[in-house]
Amino acid sequence: MTWLGVADDDPFGIDHLPYGSALGSDGRPRVLVRVGAQALDLTLASFGTPFEQLFAPGSLDALLAAGPGTWAAVRAQLVEWLTDVEHRTNIEPLLAPVDRARLVLPFAVADYVDFYASQEHATNVGRMFRPDSEPLPPNWKHLPIGYHGRSGTVVVSGTEIHRPSGQYRAAGGSIVFGASERLDIEAELGFVVGVGTDRGSPVPLAAFREHVFGVCLLNDWSARDIQAWEYVPLGPFLGKSFATSVSAWVTPLAALAAAWTTPPPRDPAPLPHLADDGRADALRIDIEIRINGHLVARPPFAGMYWTAAQMLAHLTSNGASLRAGDLYASGTISGSDRDQLGSLLELSWNGTEPIDVGDGQRTFLEDGDEVLITAVAPGPRGPIGLGEVRGRVTP
Amino acid sequence: MTWLGVADDDPFGIDHLPYGSALGSDGRPRVLVRVGAQALDLTLASFGTPFEQLFAPGSLDALLAAGPGTWAAVRAQLVEWLTDVEHRTNIEPLLAPVDRARLVLPFAVADYVDFYASQEHATNVGRMFRPDSEPLPPNWKHLPIGYHGRSGTVVVSGTEIHRPSGQYRAAGGSIVFGASERLDIEAELGFVVGVGTDRGSPVPLAAFREHVFGVCLLNDWSARDIQAWEYVPLGPFLGKSFATSVSAWVTPLAALAAAWTTPPPRDPAPLPHLADDGRADALRIDIEIRINGHLVARPPFAGMYWTAAQMLAHLTSNGASLRAGDLYASGTISGSDRDQLGSLLELSWNGTEPIDVGDGQRTFLEDGDEVLITAVAPGPRGPIGLGEVRGRVTP
Repeated sequence: MTWLGVADDDPFGIDHLPYGSALGSDGRPRVLVRVGAQALDLTLASFGTPFEQLFAPGSLDALLAAGPGTWAAVRAQLVEWLTDVEHRTNIEPLLAPVDRARLVLPFAVADYVDFYASQEHATNVGRMFRPDSEPLPPNWKHLPIGYHGRSGTVVVSGTEIHRPSGQYRAAGGSIVFGASERLDIEAELGFVVGVGTDRGSPVPLAAFREHVFGVCLLNDWSARDIQAWEYVPLGPFLGKSFATSVSAWVTPLAALAAAWTTPPPRDPAPLPHLADDGRADALRIDIEIRINGHLVARPPFAGMYWTAAQMLAHLTSNGASLRAGDLYASGTISGSDRDQLGSLLELSWNGTEPIDVGDGQRTFLEDGDEVLITAVAPGPRGPIGLGEVRGRVTP
Repeated sequence: MTWLGVADDDPFGIDHLPYGSALGSDGRPRVLVRVGAQALDLTLASFGTPFEQLFAPGSLDALLAAGPGTWAAVRAQLVEWLTDVEHRTNIEPLLAPVDRARLVLPFAVADYVDFYASQEHATNVGRMFRPDSEPLPPNWKHLPIGYHGRSGTVVVSGTEIHRPSGQYRAAGGSIVFGASERLDIEAELGFVVGVGTDRGSPVPLAAFREHVFGVCLLNDWSARDIQAWEYVPLGPFLGKSFATSVSAWVTPLAALAAAWTTPPPRDPAPLPHLADDGRADALRIDIEIRINGHLVARPPFAGMYWTAAQMLAHLTSNGASLRAGDLYASGTISGSDRDQLGSLLELSWNGTEPIDVGDGQRTFLEDGDEVLITAVAPGPRGPIGLGEVRGRVTP
């Protein structure tokens, strides 16, 4: 029990302790750790401790690179500060309400990769975009398909999203340039790499937790008209690169110890470097998507065909190196039920079946719409609540 | 004429002055500028001048971000130092032979994008990879197709290239994981962005030279077997992400003033944001590719269908922002003649027609092979020689 009065089963209680970054009153960034509705200024709290240098710059960059031993030591220190009343006098003045924090992107994104790991999502997209072919491409069950995205346009939750313009095939078949008419979301989980590697050093499945620090929620905003016209043969580009939103809070893997579970069966069996038989590498995380406050879908992460460990093993299997701050995302999380789909493309079945958003109906997003993605995972004493990712569409 | 005795028409003479970075004897990076076979330590030379802060960190990052006014001022200062004998006493001790410099990657690569701008290359690849379809995809003449690559594995010329492993379809049709058997090169020109933009601010064609600082040569190493199996539907990923080599020297656009020419005619006419009628936005740069010292191809850059200005206008047309250090490449440079093809895939016609490399024949690269890409552009008094990009394949 914390001396703050935050309950042990609070979604942001002592079992969680996600990290973020916010601008202080002097305009300089500080590392924060969230507990309940408060955030501790870790840049100040660590002053004079062995962790001072980690948090002085105000971002998570140094913590990410420091590795599992330091991650555990910092977390143990935080638990002590927040539960041992002896520290109350020093720590309490460094707490402030979360809702007053000017949250910023908590780490410098190095390379950003987006995967495509939900069988249901890939099947649905295949049916819509390639109706004359098998819905899943031949490689899909052999490897976790992925591609690089634009790290320079990863933005923190709350950032307004300008509707992108681009080139696409209009209804009559002519090629036009204009504002996207099919602006969409993709609800995803993002994985934040801490410990890098040298070129030529693949990361085996068993080493996943030595390299990945934690997770964030992610909205891979997508302009479907731009994407459909551009993506053959080199993949998505401008249909995605205008913005990718991530939650302001990064949940360390240490908080998800109770969420691991076994992944679904795979057929055919993956090749040896991707074979995870018996490994509890899937995560029970339940997502909720709201548009203008109205719940539109509840995608389950646990059923993803490929795990985060497999994605990382694949990403590095050619010898590609990792850096602290690399971010990779799961791809749209969709389940098999109609209310478990993680994109409007699927929820409205390519714009043909409008969905209810409370104050009206939608196929794709309209200007002014606000999208909110939240999630919970099982914790030792109650659900862990991942930091939200929120964004409003502007013209 | 320089007081060093470097001729005015030297490929690295006073009209060129490319920038690089190398480790000093103290192990710390210094900015260098090349003149003939010598390199000036600009980090030392600028000490006490208005440019000291730009070069103190030893990379080009601050110079890139400083913008065209500063780029011109630095260049004017360099010309004065190297041509006015009054400066000889101070400057000469700061020169050292280029071949003794421990050259490193000269700038921090932010986002890396690879285009596909040669009609001949795209047509050749289409014929080989998609023999049952039209060789050019329907979008190809409407927009410069591109995709994001891995910035963390961009390496400087001279770095050894480990043959990547990966998953691919073997000759019998089975899916295997192993060392690539079809390791290839792609000779490209890279464009280095200096001045960034905010999200929502596209860069029109006319603003190209306000944002792009200069060019480098680039080898987009490609594992064709891995690429062929993975690239549908999200594009190239592990077939490319193991390494991308760039020249150690970045040639400023200011040195290429005599190289601009008009691009080839386009049909259909590009949409307005890509329409460059009357603009001399193409570059006369002639590439040479050598394998183990043997000249195998001479691709011409001037004939590329899309210009670098069009690539940048397209890349930002959806509102994507730019950062100093963004790098984008042209895609393989191929001409219409058999000896103008910029990849072994094309030179050996998908491995069916081995080419002569002096000491033997090749379809794709063997361990130990060294690839060297060089280039020249017209200068005011003689050819400008771009910095080479070199790499040897190791097992």
